[in-house]
Amino acid sequence: MKIQPADKRELLKAAMGKIPCDLAVTNVRYVNVFTGEVYPATVFVHQGFVVHVEDQDPAKELSLAKQVIDGENHFLIPGFIDAHIHIESSMMTPRNFARAVIPRGTTTVVTDPHEITNVFGEEAVHYMHDAGLDLPMRQFIDIPSCVPAVPGLENAGAVIDAAAVDRLAKLPNVIGLAEVMDFIGVVEGDDRMVDIIEAAEKNGLYIQGHMPGVENRRMFSAYLIGGPICCHETRDTWEAVAKLRTGIHVDARESSITKNIADIMAGVRDHTFHDHLCFCTDDRESDDILYVGHMDEVVRQAVKNGMDGINAVKCATLNTAREIHMDNLGAVAPGYTADMLLVDNLSDFNVKSVFYMGQLVAKDGKLVADIQDKPAEIESRYSMNVPNLTLEDFRLKAPEGCGDKVKVNVLTYYSEELAITRAVTEEIPVKNGFVDISSDPGLCYAMIINRYGTGGRAFDLVRNFGLMKGADGSTVSHDCHNLCIVFKDAESGYAVYKALVECGGGMACADGNEITGLLRLQVGGLMSTLRPEQMAEQSDAMKKALNALGLPQKNPLLRIATMALPVIPEAKFSDLGLVDVMAKKLIPIFPQ
Amino acid sequence: MKIQPADKRELLKAAMGKIPCDLAVTNVRYVNVFTGEVYPATVFVHQGFVVHVEDQDPAKELSLAKQVIDGENHFLIPGFIDAHIHIESSMMTPRNFARAVIPRGTTTVVTDPHEITNVFGEEAVHYMHDAGLDLPMRQFIDIPSCVPAVPGLENAGAVIDAAAVDRLAKLPNVIGLAEVMDFIGVVEGDDRMVDIIEAAEKNGLYIQGHMPGVENRRMFSAYLIGGPICCHETRDTWEAVAKLRTGIHVDARESSITKNIADIMAGVRDHTFHDHLCFCTDDRESDDILYVGHMDEVVRQAVKNGMDGINAVKCATLNTAREIHMDNLGAVAPGYTADMLLVDNLSDFNVKSVFYMGQLVAKDGKLVADIQDKPAEIESRYSMNVPNLTLEDFRLKAPEGCGDKVKVNVLTYYSEELAITRAVTEEIPVKNGFVDISSDPGLCYAMIINRYGTGGRAFDLVRNFGLMKGADGSTVSHDCHNLCIVFKDAESGYAVYKALVECGGGMACADGNEITGLLRLQVGGLMSTLRPEQMAEQSDAMKKALNALGLPQKNPLLRIATMALPVIPEAKFSDLGLVDVMAKKLIPIFPQ
Repeated sequence: MKIQPADKRELLKAAMGKIPCDLAVTNVRYVNVFTGEVYPATVFVHQGFVVHVEDQDPAKELSLAKQVIDGENHFLIPGFIDAHIHIESSMMTPRNFARAVIPRGTTTVVTDPHEITNVFGEEAVHYMHDAGLDLPMRQFIDIPSCVPAVPGLENAGAVIDAAAVDRLAKLPNVIGLAEVMDFIGVVEGDDRMVDIIEAAEKNGLYIQGHMPGVENRRMFSAYLIGGPICCHETRDTWEAVAKLRTGIHVDARESSITKNIADIMAGVRDHTFHDHLCFCTDDRESDDILYVGHMDEVVRQAVKNGMDGINAVKCATLNTAREIHMDNLGAVAPGYTADMLLVDNLSDFNVKSVFYMGQLVAKDGKLVADIQDKPAEIESRYSMNVPNLTLEDFRLKAPEGCGDKVKVNVLTYYSEELAITRAVTEEIPVKNGFVDISSDPGLCYAMIINRYGTGGRAFDLVRNFGLMKGADGSTVSHDCHNLCIVFKDAESGYAVYKALVECGGGMACADGNEITGLLRLQVGGLMSTLRPEQMAEQSDAMKKALNALGLPQKNPLLRIATMALPVIPEAKFSDLGLVDVMAKKLIPIFPQ
Repeated sequence: MKIQPADKRELLKAAMGKIPCDLAVTNVRYVNVFTGEVYPATVFVHQGFVVHVEDQDPAKELSLAKQVIDGENHFLIPGFIDAHIHIESSMMTPRNFARAVIPRGTTTVVTDPHEITNVFGEEAVHYMHDAGLDLPMRQFIDIPSCVPAVPGLENAGAVIDAAAVDRLAKLPNVIGLAEVMDFIGVVEGDDRMVDIIEAAEKNGLYIQGHMPGVENRRMFSAYLIGGPICCHETRDTWEAVAKLRTGIHVDARESSITKNIADIMAGVRDHTFHDHLCFCTDDRESDDILYVGHMDEVVRQAVKNGMDGINAVKCATLNTAREIHMDNLGAVAPGYTADMLLVDNLSDFNVKSVFYMGQLVAKDGKLVADIQDKPAEIESRYSMNVPNLTLEDFRLKAPEGCGDKVKVNVLTYYSEELAITRAVTEEIPVKNGFVDISSDPGLCYAMIINRYGTGGRAFDLVRNFGLMKGADGSTVSHDCHNLCIVFKDAESGYAVYKALVECGGGMACADGNEITGLLRLQVGGLMSTLRPEQMAEQSDAMKKALNALGLPQKNPLLRIATMALPVIPEAKFSDLGLVDVMAKKLIPIFPQ
């Protein structure tokens, strides 16, 4: 696929020097991602596209350009492409996300609107697609493939089936089918996944993969045969090598919580070819983007971990363009979109200037392009269709006649840092007919409340969550984003419930009746309409409020957000109850 | 695009080891074109596709295969892909061509049936397409883009326009638009080329380029913008570097006459990345294929000229698959077609075994697959629709009243080896009203006779052709393939004319009335139905016959075949007269 110019003949004339072109960027050290060379050049741009790169006599024919920009001997590289991101994870809308990442040199992202689609279905894909148009960056959409992620074991707000994929594939900026998380379904040839993948392939979409924690290399082979061509769930050194050897594109990830670059580089930096190595951020929060970086930070980490700078640039640009089947992205070359960066060097990658479609859109870390807000009805649609609960509902009733103790399948974190959980049967005290955790500082209550009108609700205990008092609640709760509350006492839990129902979703914490932190995410309970700086500030305040309740994690927001993610082993929690992830079945809270 | 398996679910089962697979090739040094590594492995194949490559414990699970082949510690590499070839240049039909190249390790070619299409039009594309089906190799078709090459300056047997491209694009094995020779038309945005390219792109075809002898780098840029992505007309070192820098895929060519690998390698072997470097043979004759090689020879030459063997393999396989937009060709990996070779080492590339779609099709240089003939009506269709000429017509009449000398624009070869020609005005003796070359050993008469029923005919003189006596005639005469005869005396010229009209086309030479060589090419005057060995033998005999008439070239067959090629600078010859290639106009034979 190609980004089409408005008038190819005008580009031809500009290339041939028959008409003046819009822009020349001169006095740069041009990084050629086709040959790996760096040399002085002038890049000529017209109507958004590169029309010529003059490397023989870079100062020649500058008069052919209406505007000449002095590149100050910086390195000129293609704009970064993020191979896989969920914009919702920034908790910003697509347009505010753009305001944050453009100054970091990201000119294209491939976004999977999986989160908001779990809330609003197909409409959400339209919203994210349209919100991403007319921006000084490119936001491609991959259609969420697994909504819900695990049918039958959780209830989301929508279902995306093959027919929906077929419909959504017609949107102009849709280019792929997003991370096919049901890898078991793919390798076993389950009808649901086969149908969805076929619908996507029929529409010319590429298939994005997602295969975490698999050790059986025959599954890598089968997954590739099944359709997905890439995977951003690569954590271990051996895994990176094995996936690349198999032919899978490895989208090496550096998200806000999951840092995979170091381990991946350890295995692959000495390979002769890196054609199938790309970079992505997956989930990156506003403060992380603003104060650490986006794709610039990923490239920096790659170089820090032993990759040559030019090669790192290629992984972040041309390799990714190929992976996503875009034929004129990822290089600064004739006929390619004029998405390009000036950076001071090829190890720190301080982004001096960002050009998108030939326009200077950011300079010295500041956005200079104008981004208009584009309000949409969905941004103010109330999404908290939860049952009406009372304080009493936040007390966990023990089974009839169980005496002063009861066996409970407790959702147990491996540690206070790791997100992996399992179910462990424990004996828990019962007081006045209710399960009582007051004597055990490591235990909390946990409730998931369906917010899509089913009335469903599950109630269990959780160990090693980290909360020492009060309650932590969130409507950001992957992947179904039901309302999830972890609490030490019923009053706190109920307070959080009320606060989130009232504000239309988001994150809240309480100590007794007092709300000690509130982050309003009124767009589907997932995103705010705040600008990046305000977003980062409020997000930081929320983190501090959670830390004050005992959560020890550096990023305590994500603790509750992944508790209900039933594609991550071993046991998870859903609005239907406790889920055995590998066996794909529900486990009773109170075992017989 | 992908080659689709018959039943993906069966492949998945075989990949997972749930059912036995058809074949395992074990005990090999597996060359991984994704990473550049070489390691011991076993390749598992099912229903024509690779389902798994076991690199951890290659001897494991061999019992899961119905057949196990011992690779004898040879290197296992993907089958070679020829990025650009005209099968007609082998003078063999597609099926005989297959018999010749498969033992050399070529499992895929991208063929441009440009020659036969100039004779029979769209029907010829269908013929070549269908003849290439059900073979133990893959013959992709690129639709000829320039039939005729230079409209208005020559008459071919057909015209391929945008509507024809649109129709032909529907044939299953059509993947591209073939070498867009009218590069001036492309860079100037001429309607004809723009329409044809748009028709191709609309049908998802890639655009193959052809841009010889251009020094203006802005033209490289404009050409890439215009649509073509690659070029096999790269002769000089600087040109290879410049095209690769621009982003053009360089299909480095090693044809029977034009050897470009050495010059290209001199410029590019030290590049860090070679993603856009591919290999092709363009035109390769039967004896060359049989006794020297096909793609194996190209790869050998690349290594001889300083390229690493693994990299050369990648250029001849994966890089080309990408260029032609085929997503599961060019590597031995799960989901990819099981096209693979066993070679003894990575410098000589002696091909020990050839597998196509998982079948052993050649071993130790011998075809073991069964190739059935597939006779088609077109193969015996008479194509010599020429005017009825007499001996008198082979005498060149001087203009009325010119006296004993006349100025003639002589088509002049730069040397007896080079194919480049220009028009040079000379004063030539006139005897009895006829132009007389008898006293000048460097001159010959040259006639081109339209063979598509227009009755057109042009008559001129040619210098430095190399013929010392008799006549040389051919219906292989790029690109229109009109009947072309070069002769020292009318009798010889007429004898050749009669012989070729009688046999239905081909090549002939005569000394006076005696036919001293005849190569019958009854398939459109371009191809024989002979088997490769017989073809090579007859072709060799014809070469010897031409050498006996004075032609000094190592391959004298091609001398006449390129005399009328009006896309090669500076002046050429057509059925309409003498052509100024750069100015795109006719020049009078007798200047005023």
